[in-house]
Amino acid sequence: MTRRVQVVEVGARDGLQNEQQPLSTDFKVGLIERLESCGFPEVEVTSMVHPKWVPQLADAATLLDAIKPIPSSGLRTVLVPNLKGLERALESGVKRVAVFIAASESFSQKNTNRSIAASLEQTRDVVTAARDKHLSVRGYLSTVFVCPFEGRIDPKVSAELTRKLIEFGCDQVSLGDTIGAAVPEDIDAVLDQLEGLERNRLALHLHDTYGTALANVTRGLERGVRTFDSSVGGAGGCPYAPGATGNLATEDLLYLLERGGWEHGIDRTRVLEAARYLEQGLGRPLQSHLMAVSRASRTPAS
Amino acid sequence: MTRRVQVVEVGARDGLQNEQQPLSTDFKVGLIERLESCGFPEVEVTSMVHPKWVPQLADAATLLDAIKPIPSSGLRTVLVPNLKGLERALESGVKRVAVFIAASESFSQKNTNRSIAASLEQTRDVVTAARDKHLSVRGYLSTVFVCPFEGRIDPKVSAELTRKLIEFGCDQVSLGDTIGAAVPEDIDAVLDQLEGLERNRLALHLHDTYGTALANVTRGLERGVRTFDSSVGGAGGCPYAPGATGNLATEDLLYLLERGGWEHGIDRTRVLEAARYLEQGLGRPLQSHLMAVSRASRTPAS
Repeated sequence: MTRRVQVVEVGARDGLQNEQQPLSTDFKVGLIERLESCGFPEVEVTSMVHPKWVPQLADAATLLDAIKPIPSSGLRTVLVPNLKGLERALESGVKRVAVFIAASESFSQKNTNRSIAASLEQTRDVVTAARDKHLSVRGYLSTVFVCPFEGRIDPKVSAELTRKLIEFGCDQVSLGDTIGAAVPEDIDAVLDQLEGLERNRLALHLHDTYGTALANVTRGLERGVRTFDSSVGGAGGCPYAPGATGNLATEDLLYLLERGGWEHGIDRTRVLEAARYLEQGLGRPLQSHLMAVSRASRTPAS
Repeated sequence: MTRRVQVVEVGARDGLQNEQQPLSTDFKVGLIERLESCGFPEVEVTSMVHPKWVPQLADAATLLDAIKPIPSSGLRTVLVPNLKGLERALESGVKRVAVFIAASESFSQKNTNRSIAASLEQTRDVVTAARDKHLSVRGYLSTVFVCPFEGRIDPKVSAELTRKLIEFGCDQVSLGDTIGAAVPEDIDAVLDQLEGLERNRLALHLHDTYGTALANVTRGLERGVRTFDSSVGGAGGCPYAPGATGNLATEDLLYLLERGGWEHGIDRTRVLEAARYLEQGLGRPLQSHLMAVSRASRTPAS
């Protein structure tokens, strides 16, 4: 089995959408250009959500006009919550979109004010419309393993929803540990239910609240998963999970992969530069392990 | 294979020995009593090192006199660097000691001013003398995987030194990722070299500098290791590794084990109480994931 791993950078969208202070469009353009120069196979750049719900990303259309054409063979992805968002993405010349549903009924209601069944229906329409316009589509399934309101999610439910997203026309489904509470046995339980599905149809989207993200990556790699989402500097979080410390940090993931002999083709030095740029914009230190080591290395030991 | 895991609590020794401000003996007594009430199979309480080298633990003998008899069937362990330290431990009525050597020549020189060969000789004498007095002995091998000065350590060297410690009379050898830089493939490389050795003879002693500690626990569990060292609150560090953020936190390890269905018999609530007590003594927040979640849960969300 291949030792090649795909890392999908989601910091510019998932990382920024929970920030209290919206960042300027110029700043985001700088962040995306830095990230797209690192060699990621895919960078998610923003979300076409209604500004009322996520004011942090209200400038999505302006942002897409302002960034340069993709500098490499990588993919540029924009999250779209509904047909209106898809329309706006098409107007901006987007070639790849992402859709999302939750595996937890309570989370679906709290996050989108809609049942899973209603989300599925709407998502099918969005994916169909996107494919009709020759866009490729990535699917996100959130709260796949654990929900902050319901606890453990039945792996059969998560697996069934994953298959539905593939049937609708998503080329890949990213399985989200939205509150960062899963352990390797949770990864097993869902992958067991997805036996037979090609592993390149799956990604793991992990958060690190309980420090288990790299343990879950490790189990994913063992089980044949080769795509992992991460966020520069570990930016991000979940408003419904107290203490949720953000996404798995891209640089921490790259460290694990590199030392372990996994190929990824990404320039880790540039990722750290992008993380430092983001720190300056946010005005606070980012919480990744590599950023902490980097800071300590530059401070003379007492 | 058993789902029972042994967690060895090393916070009172490995956690405190790098603290700038020595804590009072009374405070340490309180910490040890809290830790020994949690149900650990083994608690390492202090080190009989020369006060000149580790002033934080200069009160070891006074401390041992001050703590109550062990409240449970658990073991109480004291680190001894040499025969003089062993003598002092015997005077304090200690029943179990720990010895240590490094797998890296440079680290051995920097940490103990002695070659590996000289350390081995001295350690053999200490273990022999301890066994003659009917003490049981635990062995530590540090920088097993990565050295801050030499980089990757040859797994054959680490395995050979592990076997020597067993031959000398140690009932278990704890394999230390002293600077917290190892990844699961490093764990594999050393365990591959130790095929044939009973797995209960081995422990993993992990630090979390690069966020890989729980990934390494995961690989250890898969490979049959059932003993893991950890430190309450993640206290500890390594003076030779910039940014080294301390030992794997006991409460984070317990979380991984519990959610994964591994039995450990330890009261996690009491561990968190001990961590809060330690935070008060240190006057700064401890860095474990569970402590961060616990703090955030007690702060109303904005």
